[in-house]
Amino acid sequence: MKNLIERDIPDEFAAEYGVYNGEFANINDYALAPKKIHPVKPGDSKLLDSIHDAIVRTGLKDGMTISFHHHFREGDYVMNMVLDEIAKMGIKNISIAPSSIANVHEPLIDHIKNGVVTDITSSGLRDKVGAAISSGIMKNPVVIRSHGGRARAIVRGDIHIDVAFLGAPSSDEYGNINGTKGKATCGSLGYAMIDAKYADQVVAITDSLMPYPNTPISIPQTDVDYVVVVDAIGDPEGIAKGATRFTKNPKELLIAEYAAKVITHSSYFKNGFSFQTGTGGASLAVSRFLRQAMIDQDIKASFALGGITNAMVELMQEGLVDKLIDVQDFDHPSAVSLGENADHYEIDANMYASPLSKGAMINQLDIAILSALEVDTDFNVNVMTGSDGVLRGASGGHSDTSAACKMSMVIAPLIRGRIPTIVDQVNTVVTPGASVDVVVTELGVAINPARQDLIDMFAKLDVPQFTIEELKQKAYAVTGTPKPIEYGDRVVALIEYRDGTLIDVVRNV
Amino acid sequence: MKNLIERDIPDEFAAEYGVYNGEFANINDYALAPKKIHPVKPGDSKLLDSIHDAIVRTGLKDGMTISFHHHFREGDYVMNMVLDEIAKMGIKNISIAPSSIANVHEPLIDHIKNGVVTDITSSGLRDKVGAAISSGIMKNPVVIRSHGGRARAIVRGDIHIDVAFLGAPSSDEYGNINGTKGKATCGSLGYAMIDAKYADQVVAITDSLMPYPNTPISIPQTDVDYVVVVDAIGDPEGIAKGATRFTKNPKELLIAEYAAKVITHSSYFKNGFSFQTGTGGASLAVSRFLRQAMIDQDIKASFALGGITNAMVELMQEGLVDKLIDVQDFDHPSAVSLGENADHYEIDANMYASPLSKGAMINQLDIAILSALEVDTDFNVNVMTGSDGVLRGASGGHSDTSAACKMSMVIAPLIRGRIPTIVDQVNTVVTPGASVDVVVTELGVAINPARQDLIDMFAKLDVPQFTIEELKQKAYAVTGTPKPIEYGDRVVALIEYRDGTLIDVVRNV
Repeated sequence: MKNLIERDIPDEFAAEYGVYNGEFANINDYALAPKKIHPVKPGDSKLLDSIHDAIVRTGLKDGMTISFHHHFREGDYVMNMVLDEIAKMGIKNISIAPSSIANVHEPLIDHIKNGVVTDITSSGLRDKVGAAISSGIMKNPVVIRSHGGRARAIVRGDIHIDVAFLGAPSSDEYGNINGTKGKATCGSLGYAMIDAKYADQVVAITDSLMPYPNTPISIPQTDVDYVVVVDAIGDPEGIAKGATRFTKNPKELLIAEYAAKVITHSSYFKNGFSFQTGTGGASLAVSRFLRQAMIDQDIKASFALGGITNAMVELMQEGLVDKLIDVQDFDHPSAVSLGENADHYEIDANMYASPLSKGAMINQLDIAILSALEVDTDFNVNVMTGSDGVLRGASGGHSDTSAACKMSMVIAPLIRGRIPTIVDQVNTVVTPGASVDVVVTELGVAINPARQDLIDMFAKLDVPQFTIEELKQKAYAVTGTPKPIEYGDRVVALIEYRDGTLIDVVRNV
Repeated sequence: MKNLIERDIPDEFAAEYGVYNGEFANINDYALAPKKIHPVKPGDSKLLDSIHDAIVRTGLKDGMTISFHHHFREGDYVMNMVLDEIAKMGIKNISIAPSSIANVHEPLIDHIKNGVVTDITSSGLRDKVGAAISSGIMKNPVVIRSHGGRARAIVRGDIHIDVAFLGAPSSDEYGNINGTKGKATCGSLGYAMIDAKYADQVVAITDSLMPYPNTPISIPQTDVDYVVVVDAIGDPEGIAKGATRFTKNPKELLIAEYAAKVITHSSYFKNGFSFQTGTGGASLAVSRFLRQAMIDQDIKASFALGGITNAMVELMQEGLVDKLIDVQDFDHPSAVSLGENADHYEIDANMYASPLSKGAMINQLDIAILSALEVDTDFNVNVMTGSDGVLRGASGGHSDTSAACKMSMVIAPLIRGRIPTIVDQVNTVVTPGASVDVVVTELGVAINPARQDLIDMFAKLDVPQFTIEELKQKAYAVTGTPKPIEYGDRVVALIEYRDGTLIDVVRNV
């Protein structure tokens, strides 16, 4: 069947998940997910000798669901260590629910092929893992969830985590964990906090055992069953990998300049405004332009949200942003800042972005600056599959933030190499066009016709304006009309909208 | 039937709750309490005009359970305001589950008599409310729960809170709450945090509305449904009422000196030890003696736990205690310290003391110094009823801490006025003798014979030592044998042990 935005969802999946029917069409009252608790008595020790022992003690067995967090990004050692041990012990049919999957998790491919891992939900799938899954190595499709959608799924019980294996930059022997101390500091543990709260059992894996009580406490002892000390949980270099310096690329600078103009000429740009940016070169450049405008016009932001970078930390230190609200850190300086500044505040993924929470912080957000692999003439955005149809991106907070904030801006070059970014129809919809307000390219901007208020607001804006159709035509004029991808018949990934319904599926290539 | 310590529990209550059968006899795996969540969408406002509107919007009706916190102690305005409005609206048969009840809640007596409030659970019942309930004004007995027991009851669903009305010293309009800013700062919101997490609906009542986002966040927006602004939620004077200065009473100083000697000559007194003290004159004096010993012997504590006073804050500021772990503040300086010191850390009641959590902080505690109204020759302790059998005390963290810590000390004068403190049998057992290790009086100490290790440890201690029987005899030699209280037939209070079973009942007088 087809969903509201005309994407074809096979009946079996439509029946199981429901189909996307509008940004807020599926927000209903619900009951908190069930959870079992095994009390810990005085004198009981949580310390175990090895990951092997933790697998034994948790009673992990065939068919169970385990989770991991992705705060170590390309520096994560934990998921590979745990899956290797599980494989060695002969446990099969495991469902994994990491908050995301990175290139470093390439060994996962063998675990899939050997039947150790049979189900996956994740925000992202990179490079070799994404390509392998796109080629059809799994029987069951991967479920791609946004960061807010994953929190929703855990809190509502759509994902029931039997055992969470959480890399802990520092922990005491009773399981008080933070990400700002230790050998492999990652800063915020926002995604892991949710797993710790709702998993039946939680194993903290640390390389930095601290005296009791370890504070600050991001994950409390009351959410942790066992603590395992290993030599190393992550590579600090890998944690910051991909973090971007300010761009010198003229195209990116032009996009950033246009984006900053949109922001500073909007009615949202006033004292106490709030914003979220990404980590790409253009996003960081927007921050720089924004900074100058804030100084020039004596405007301060109340908070900056989301994945935090050093660029944000500097804005706070300059007094231009009152508070940083942090679900994830993208570089070392921001992880350090979280540990040192009371106005740099850690939150969990449910509070960041869940559509079913009692109000996520993105609901209070004025402006979000988001990226795209593709945008189509319905303003739908793809951040998941490449122009070849292969899984290589991440859903992230894209659909969450753009749905909830007051003005969502997608910034992207019109063309990448010889491939158009603005297209007739995106390969994969992650964020519906209804959530996207302004598309910013180096040629100019396109405002979603659904936002007549913004069209009026920006009538005199000193930035070239086009319809999205015009932008697409300009792209196609250079690249030619892209050839359709030849997909196979198998569904390799389900793209869950943040509310739990399916907004799209990805087929094998 | 009789429970393990020979207290008579009427069959109907024994059947409903089970009976006390040992400190850790009833610690079993369980499922987290169910909870309903009503999602809040972008653009939805949580701000309501009045408590009346909050009662309407939450759909509060006859038979429901509502809760309050007692962090404002004798300065609380919230419970009276809410119950007055509920009464005015004609709602009846309400069950209330405040974390404790103070003298200031005297209007509750009329609400009970008028059928507005028909069930109560609380840690404490003071003065007029206690006396009225002891006289038999309620059909259903009050359920007295320890702080850890209340957390257990809420987390396991023994108490299901339909609506929590939480006084918020400061809140933003989305419900981010802390107790360290605002007009009526109470410091830690440790007891309220649990209500916020598990109640179906939460109403924040504040007199200090802050810009968004209000940080630090003790109770997050994701736990709050509505925010109501009123003129005043509490009287700052009343919050600190009863906080004690250092005593000059020679009897209290002698008790404190003996207690300090027990601590400093124990094997627990070494670098990294931990302790909890109370708020009475003698308790504070123990801190002072302890301070001197720590300086003299160059020993530092890793943490001090529990209800925090300025005496503890000063120890931290002197570098003698690394961290304060705070579930409640007893005076203004400690509330201020919580807001200013990163090593002064707020925790919730579940993490403080629940016997069914994945490990409470009291499990890591070396030494607890506790008070008593009566101690009997089985070392059972009464902190709930006076020598006349009338309800006037509070269960507090007494049974929790003494069960979990490594050495529990009960400090009390041998005699108060003409009333013995050490008796044949306490009127009401709150803490079983199995949990009490050392009783300290101005005449000397009695060590529980069950702790042969402590008897050996203190063989050469420079403090007079007696059996508990001898201490009782010395007390009775002065006061005479107390006359038995003439109770009526009605059970007016059930004393729940921290694990949920009944350790005693209180009958009407």
